[in-house]
Amino acid sequence: MKSDRALFKHSSRITVRNYEIDWQGIVHNAIYLCYFEVGRISYLENLGIMVNIGSIQTDFRIVVVRNEIDYWTPARFGEELQVLTRISRIRNSSFTFEGILEDATTRRRVAENVSVHALLDPSGCSSVPLDDAFRKRVRDFEGPNVEIPSPE
Amino acid sequence: MKSDRALFKHSSRITVRNYEIDWQGIVHNAIYLCYFEVGRISYLENLGIMVNIGSIQTDFRIVVVRNEIDYWTPARFGEELQVLTRISRIRNSSFTFEGILEDATTRRRVAENVSVHALLDPSGCSSVPLDDAFRKRVRDFEGPNVEIPSPE
Amino acid sequence: MKSDRALFKHSSRITVRNYEIDWQGIVHNAIYLCYFEVGRISYLENLGIMVNIGSIQTDFRIVVVRNEIDYWTPARFGEELQVLTRISRIRNSSFTFEGILEDATTRRRVAENVSVHALLDPSGCSSVPLDDAFRKRVRDFEGPNVEIPSPE
Amino acid sequence: MKSDRALFKHSSRITVRNYEIDWQGIVHNAIYLCYFEVGRISYLENLGIMVNIGSIQTDFRIVVVRNEIDYWTPARFGEELQVLTRISRIRNSSFTFEGILEDATTRRRVAENVSVHALLDPSGCSSVPLDDAFRKRVRDFEGPNVEIPSPE
Repeated sequence: MKSDRALFKHSSRITVRNYEIDWQGIVHNAIYLCYFEVGRISYLENLGIMVNIGSIQTDFRIVVVRNEIDYWTPARFGEELQVLTRISRIRNSSFTFEGILEDATTRRRVAENVSVHALLDPSGCSSVPLDDAFRKRVRDFEGPNVEIPSPE
Repeated sequence: MKSDRALFKHSSRITVRNYEIDWQGIVHNAIYLCYFEVGRISYLENLGIMVNIGSIQTDFRIVVVRNEIDYWTPARFGEELQVLTRISRIRNSSFTFEGILEDATTRRRVAENVSVHALLDPSGCSSVPLDDAFRKRVRDFEGPNVEIPSPE
Repeated sequence: MKSDRALFKHSSRITVRNYEIDWQGIVHNAIYLCYFEVGRISYLENLGIMVNIGSIQTDFRIVVVRNEIDYWTPARFGEELQVLTRISRIRNSSFTFEGILEDATTRRRVAENVSVHALLDPSGCSSVPLDDAFRKRVRDFEGPNVEIPSPE
Repeated sequence: MKSDRALFKHSSRITVRNYEIDWQGIVHNAIYLCYFEVGRISYLENLGIMVNIGSIQTDFRIVVVRNEIDYWTPARFGEELQVLTRISRIRNSSFTFEGILEDATTRRRVAENVSVHALLDPSGCSSVPLDDAFRKRVRDFEGPNVEIPSPE
């Protein structure tokens, strides 16, 4: 994987905290998933889509159905990282995020992520279609770079 | 992804702990990576390859270069999980693990993982070739299911 | 602090997982709090008091108001630990847990914990009195070792 | 516990991240320990004492021997917190940190912490006396508020 940095319009910042360093002296490989999640939530909030973390969701829930991460170089304690985030594709009831994690100063690439998310009903049993307002907000923000198949 | 369960010969057990449950009431998506790692370390120990967690590695370090996870169904508090682990491929200085996470009783599939690992020198700068003893141990355990290209 | 081991009637087991090891090669100091919590939830379940982790609590919530931990010796990767747990005191709307964490085989003491818990209404704003059924269950299990002041 | 805010001269900032929210919708009680640790490391760095997180310590190690936390009000997702940190006492081979965690805007108190740290040799077996340079740096920064018993 080698994501094209020029496609990303949203970024957020994270500083590596001491308790995220593992016994190898670098950020633990699972923590990067958390960093990309920070970027996604910031992205959605920027679009006006609030993720009510800590509250009961009564209408639907968004779940992660797939994650891919490529680790380029390890992040270290105190490093200031930049998470670049974009939605690259929207389907009927799922969508795809891409992320790049890099050193905020040197832009050294730390990791890349592709994640797929599905919309489910509150019971988590059946999928819920994404509404047109969501498609429009993402299209308005991303422009032609987001792939949204026309309804058949 | 839909890994063939019959190919796996190693399993280990994990019980979901309360602090691994996130604000959605299910195991956080990054925690599954940790569970698969528990399986991999158990697998290596079973092969007689000790991972000196917490000690200084003077000869080489194993790093994760890629992770793929498919989430099938969420795991919940107190659930006893089984992690199935196998090495599916060995290259010159990297190898691939596959994992299946399932409910230990019902075998309901929770998640699947493919991870790629590289052997680096202690500085983390250059790759180190895997030795033949490692190849032989994995071959002896996995039989013909592990893909090991012949040296050219 | 030096808790009297003989006072404890409930124990549960935990094996240290690799991702709980920090950059010093030992279990991170915050993780022990999680281990003691595992013991407390097991204790309550053993008394027939289910903590609905991951579900919405509609009647009350239990919150931690104070934690004290003494660290005796570090726990290491793969070590099997035993958590001893008891309720030492019940007040009107709060109660106190004590915990001992030790190596399950050698009984080497790892850490001790005293935690105070309060019962709040679902909004988290005002305290809720503990009911007599709770007092009775704890008294029946702990016998005279639990301090329960008589109502005035 | 009710620490006197006026005694604190060092502060650092932390924003609550989504994956630190537990199933009750608030920051998990063990995470606050990590936040206070962020404050302590920042404090030491400000004094010119580098904590080589992720590196091998060859001369000594600092370990936590006791932690006390009082939880005042829960922190929530996205909240910007301020950690106030001071060293309140230095003994021969141990010292005491105090911390206050508060909302960075409203100064609503979230939690308080007292932690005791010991200096050990690299094996972790015997205590190492704190040197006078450390005492002097802390005295210069804290002034008369830090308690340093005269050598007998």
